[in-house]
Amino acid sequence: MKTPDEKKPDAKYLALCGGVGGAKLALGLSHVLSPGQLTIMVNTGDDFEHLGLHISPDIDTVCYTLAGRSHKERGWGLENESWQMMSTLTELGGENWFQLGDRDLGLHLYRSRALARGESLTAVTQHICSSFGVKHTVIPMSDDPVRTMIGTERGELAFQHYFVREQCRPEVRSFCFRGAETAQLNPLCETLLNDRALKGIIVCPSNPFISIDPILATGQCREKLIACGKPLIVVSPIIAGQAIKGPTAKIMNELKVPCSSLAIAKHYSDIASTIIIDDNDRDEAQEIEQVTGIRVSSSATLMKSEQDKINLAMFVLSQLQTGA
Amino acid sequence: MKTPDEKKPDAKYLALCGGVGGAKLALGLSHVLSPGQLTIMVNTGDDFEHLGLHISPDIDTVCYTLAGRSHKERGWGLENESWQMMSTLTELGGENWFQLGDRDLGLHLYRSRALARGESLTAVTQHICSSFGVKHTVIPMSDDPVRTMIGTERGELAFQHYFVREQCRPEVRSFCFRGAETAQLNPLCETLLNDRALKGIIVCPSNPFISIDPILATGQCREKLIACGKPLIVVSPIIAGQAIKGPTAKIMNELKVPCSSLAIAKHYSDIASTIIIDDNDRDEAQEIEQVTGIRVSSSATLMKSEQDKINLAMFVLSQLQTGA
Repeated sequence: MKTPDEKKPDAKYLALCGGVGGAKLALGLSHVLSPGQLTIMVNTGDDFEHLGLHISPDIDTVCYTLAGRSHKERGWGLENESWQMMSTLTELGGENWFQLGDRDLGLHLYRSRALARGESLTAVTQHICSSFGVKHTVIPMSDDPVRTMIGTERGELAFQHYFVREQCRPEVRSFCFRGAETAQLNPLCETLLNDRALKGIIVCPSNPFISIDPILATGQCREKLIACGKPLIVVSPIIAGQAIKGPTAKIMNELKVPCSSLAIAKHYSDIASTIIIDDNDRDEAQEIEQVTGIRVSSSATLMKSEQDKINLAMFVLSQLQTGA
Repeated sequence: MKTPDEKKPDAKYLALCGGVGGAKLALGLSHVLSPGQLTIMVNTGDDFEHLGLHISPDIDTVCYTLAGRSHKERGWGLENESWQMMSTLTELGGENWFQLGDRDLGLHLYRSRALARGESLTAVTQHICSSFGVKHTVIPMSDDPVRTMIGTERGELAFQHYFVREQCRPEVRSFCFRGAETAQLNPLCETLLNDRALKGIIVCPSNPFISIDPILATGQCREKLIACGKPLIVVSPIIAGQAIKGPTAKIMNELKVPCSSLAIAKHYSDIASTIIIDDNDRDEAQEIEQVTGIRVSSSATLMKSEQDKINLAMFVLSQLQTGA
């Protein structure tokens, strides 16, 4: 007989998420879990100060995606966006390598002011989500600044300089998550990890090196995930030797890591109990299990439609229940 | 026989200017004087920090007007402006009492960054003007902060709180130009006042209390204008007992000052050699001359069309030449 906190309606889940790729699964999860069941903890290693504004690209992507406002093709930024501010800024010779839409700017100005007043990033994020009608809990990995620095052939670059300004061209050699060791893990995450209702942790199909590793490095998150003893499921961002989007494949090549779900499984071998790989890669399952000891299951992991996202979310939850 | 520096092409003029009303005459002057002949020194007592941005409303109005980009009906802000940022800010419950257009924002972000880097407001203003194709010299009254504070029945209000947020509703009792005494008058103005080519100073038809007085109070500007001994001509902002625009008449009533060009002449009696009043008020000329000792001439001072502005500018210059 099940105890009350094991009933499905009470089961809670923690999703770790970066930007565009991860946000797709987060959206799927938000369709199949009630607001009280799902906490999405987002990477803030990409956050930066630009034009005097505090910008949190991954939080914004998750928030816009869950609010149904994200630009469908680009994945980041807003639908029906305009770019008038950028046109003046460009005319004045200002720094225009980072595109800031007009609607988006209202959020950056609001958040920057709130942070300057002393509000926490967690509180501002909750206010923004609630204003946009996002009912599930979206939290930053920490209220303290953590900054992903990319060691490249050309020296160390701040994340957005590497990712946007240099368009991921420099060859990557290493990563450093400045401030991660001393940053405090989001207290809401700490509480959740100690909550008996927490039934599993989901690592969304984000870039492991630049979206998930900063989270794991923050405030001993990795150690705390292991210590809590809850099942942790990774959705591999690799399909048939390719990353869906972004520089994951390029980075893996530069780090001399094969672009495969096996490499992803190895990367997470200390924390993962299950990895979901794409149906196309099903024949790798046995090797992954043998090499890493991680249970493997396969599904359609390419999320194009909303239904794809919901289907994958349901599969992830079913696997957590099976694996638990 | 005239010496070379008295020839008209070399004659230089200094215009003191606030926002919308003054900018109209500044535009007229820019049509009839070459870039080397005209320096427009603008009130910065209205400047303020808002949403972390440094905003210089009068400088922007002058710059946009001279660039031919100002909104024709409103007078402030840009033509073809959009307001997407404001819509997000409002949705988030941010401070939305001050309207910031999307195109306009590019300028505020650029300037705020430049000031934060340590550039002077004079240098940033010159860069902005030059980027927008404004060839005449527009300078702030000072690179140091001066902040107009309005003493009202409800206590002291920062200028924009009085002017925009409270829409000039509180009854005015006094003015204070915080920082004016210790602020350094713009060095380019100092140089011009000592330039033998300076043939006259023009006080544009701006609000004397909130647009021109802050300039006169800054870095002993008033004393320096008197000391330089150059003719100073005031264009009265009052026509037939009414101010064209803005709170001038309301403020004069609240200060128990009659809303007349005589009151304007008295206000400037220590610095003005000539006042231009509207043709409609021609019958006040004799009394003004008798009471204040200031020479009076009249013209059509309502500036609706560009030609109105040019005509008034030409009349002002002709009067400076007559009066000199």
